[in-house]
Amino acid sequence: MNTYSDLDTPERILLGPGPSMVHPRVLHALSHPLIGHLDPKFINLMKEVQDLLRFVFQTQNEMTLPISGTGSASMESTLANLIEPGDSVLICINGYFGERLVDMAGRYGATVYRLDKPWGEAILPEEVEAALNKQPVKLVAIVHAETSTGVLTPIDSLAEIVHKYGALLLIDCVTSLGGVPVKIDEWDIDIAYSGSQKCLGCPPGLGPITVGERARQAMHARKTKVANWYLDLTMLEHYWGDERTYHHTAPISMNFAIREALRLVLEEGLQERFSRHTAISALLWEGLEDLGLKLIVPLEYRLPTLTTVAVPEGVNEVEVRQRLLNEYNIEISGGLGAFKGKAWRIGLMGYSCSRQNVTLLLAALEMLLKK
Amino acid sequence: MNTYSDLDTPERILLGPGPSMVHPRVLHALSHPLIGHLDPKFINLMKEVQDLLRFVFQTQNEMTLPISGTGSASMESTLANLIEPGDSVLICINGYFGERLVDMAGRYGATVYRLDKPWGEAILPEEVEAALNKQPVKLVAIVHAETSTGVLTPIDSLAEIVHKYGALLLIDCVTSLGGVPVKIDEWDIDIAYSGSQKCLGCPPGLGPITVGERARQAMHARKTKVANWYLDLTMLEHYWGDERTYHHTAPISMNFAIREALRLVLEEGLQERFSRHTAISALLWEGLEDLGLKLIVPLEYRLPTLTTVAVPEGVNEVEVRQRLLNEYNIEISGGLGAFKGKAWRIGLMGYSCSRQNVTLLLAALEMLLKK
Repeated sequence: MNTYSDLDTPERILLGPGPSMVHPRVLHALSHPLIGHLDPKFINLMKEVQDLLRFVFQTQNEMTLPISGTGSASMESTLANLIEPGDSVLICINGYFGERLVDMAGRYGATVYRLDKPWGEAILPEEVEAALNKQPVKLVAIVHAETSTGVLTPIDSLAEIVHKYGALLLIDCVTSLGGVPVKIDEWDIDIAYSGSQKCLGCPPGLGPITVGERARQAMHARKTKVANWYLDLTMLEHYWGDERTYHHTAPISMNFAIREALRLVLEEGLQERFSRHTAISALLWEGLEDLGLKLIVPLEYRLPTLTTVAVPEGVNEVEVRQRLLNEYNIEISGGLGAFKGKAWRIGLMGYSCSRQNVTLLLAALEMLLKK
Repeated sequence: MNTYSDLDTPERILLGPGPSMVHPRVLHALSHPLIGHLDPKFINLMKEVQDLLRFVFQTQNEMTLPISGTGSASMESTLANLIEPGDSVLICINGYFGERLVDMAGRYGATVYRLDKPWGEAILPEEVEAALNKQPVKLVAIVHAETSTGVLTPIDSLAEIVHKYGALLLIDCVTSLGGVPVKIDEWDIDIAYSGSQKCLGCPPGLGPITVGERARQAMHARKTKVANWYLDLTMLEHYWGDERTYHHTAPISMNFAIREALRLVLEEGLQERFSRHTAISALLWEGLEDLGLKLIVPLEYRLPTLTTVAVPEGVNEVEVRQRLLNEYNIEISGGLGAFKGKAWRIGLMGYSCSRQNVTLLLAALEMLLKK
């Protein structure tokens, strides 16, 4: 048997696609001694977490809760609960996470129709309408903020179109929630999921979701059991609802953490938080362009919370990232899929999104890219 | 919007069915600043967690890892990966978690055969053999330590029987792993799952699993995709394997915590840890009987890590638990299912399992049960 040293983690500046950095108050909350998951004090905390999630989702949806898994689990929960074998789904794909939705939906027996756009482009409402016009479906799924490309797809008027065709609208707001506006009620979104470790500034391990009345009715009208026990919202709503019927054991410490992370969002204010993300990302963009680097996404659809940068000709993209990590303790990320080897991905999310971090990154990049 | 106070959790003595108490060193590990999930330092930590899990599972199985969800997710992962629609499964049921296995297996399209025993009784190898003799199946699932009843089912010689009938053996060791012997390799178990928050002394949020060669081959021989993306081990083995192919984002902080919890197991030593659980539970049993209370499970099959006690005639079981919690900060649990209102469940797991805690509980119970 090996011996194992004390845990000794470097102090990284996390400017990748997530996890983002976590405020010391959130780390402190994580380290509180445990209480039971059916303890009245914890049940009260669950209610608070739900209220705070409603606040960031800008919704009154009763069924708003953190799935006890990462953002991928919350993603799967939305599909698993809405899809029955043979249901038709339109999936809008302009990056890696659109492809993941296709993979997941297929596993639940959906007939999947694809609306493909090249990586780095947004999907426009009229394109969704054209697809629905050709092929009616039960559910339309779209990624609000594509973490693989840095594209922010306009979705504020999409629900009207989708509902006109009798479908439900599902959005992925993993990299938008808490960083750019996500107005579930005003935009009339039926169901949405996110992750704890991006703009909410909590460690990974929880996947917030919110489910509106139309989607909830669709779940309750299912003819078959949800083909996933752990993520079955018809049971989870009784665990998180007033009955508190035992389902699984909620991750206690992670719920301590998300409560504190959400309190920080509340204290900062949503508008102030969005403004911070906008202002700091503008600094980043300006600085990158000053270094002669090309931003992949045009300004109109560029996501403040995640920026994709084209790797210049003749530069070893892996080496730059490794030197950033080893010499400056800064993490940025490479590209996925179509962007592999061609792009860097720079995240400015939550507590990571600061003038100090951008200034350091730009100075470090300048040193490393100098001939 | 409400205001939310600083997190203020009471210092509970957790003697319920889990979560159990968490050593301060584990809480400290939880609170370390985050690093990225693809950071070389984290990748090294993932390997260490896997090695340490092999140590507690007493196995060399390559595919040994913590599922990024609670014990219920790890339970579902084992079924989801082994079952294809139409596969036949024998599920042994002597409590709540056997029933849950039935529910889950059905969702993956299994034809489920039941072997039922009354709550509070063990299931014997010859009973499993008789069932297999009547009905051959692909998979036999059995709960080693039933958290709902406090029964420890003898499984050390079960694999030989199950393999003779050409089936795979799946065990639930949620409430046994780290508290009583679980010898995956010596007992030739094909696949097993557990939870982080019981005898391993980590907060809830991770579900350790281990998969032997026979079960792994069965997964790779599937004709259909695993009907669950998040728990698909054919993908997870490449995330946790040498390729480190991106799947989801591992819960970083929870992995910090389980590493520290497992280090504590290693430092104590497995045999010493099992001896502690045996000795401390014997103190509890003696003390409870001295108070005139009846232990539900006969000594031969009584689980050291979770004890069920019959609620005496005329005693308000809920009130006793509430007073324990409110006046003594001690959590014990009521019964589930067939034992609802009739039993208390007292857990002695991991860091909770101490002479001090038992002494306090017995003294408090004596006060509360006095006429």
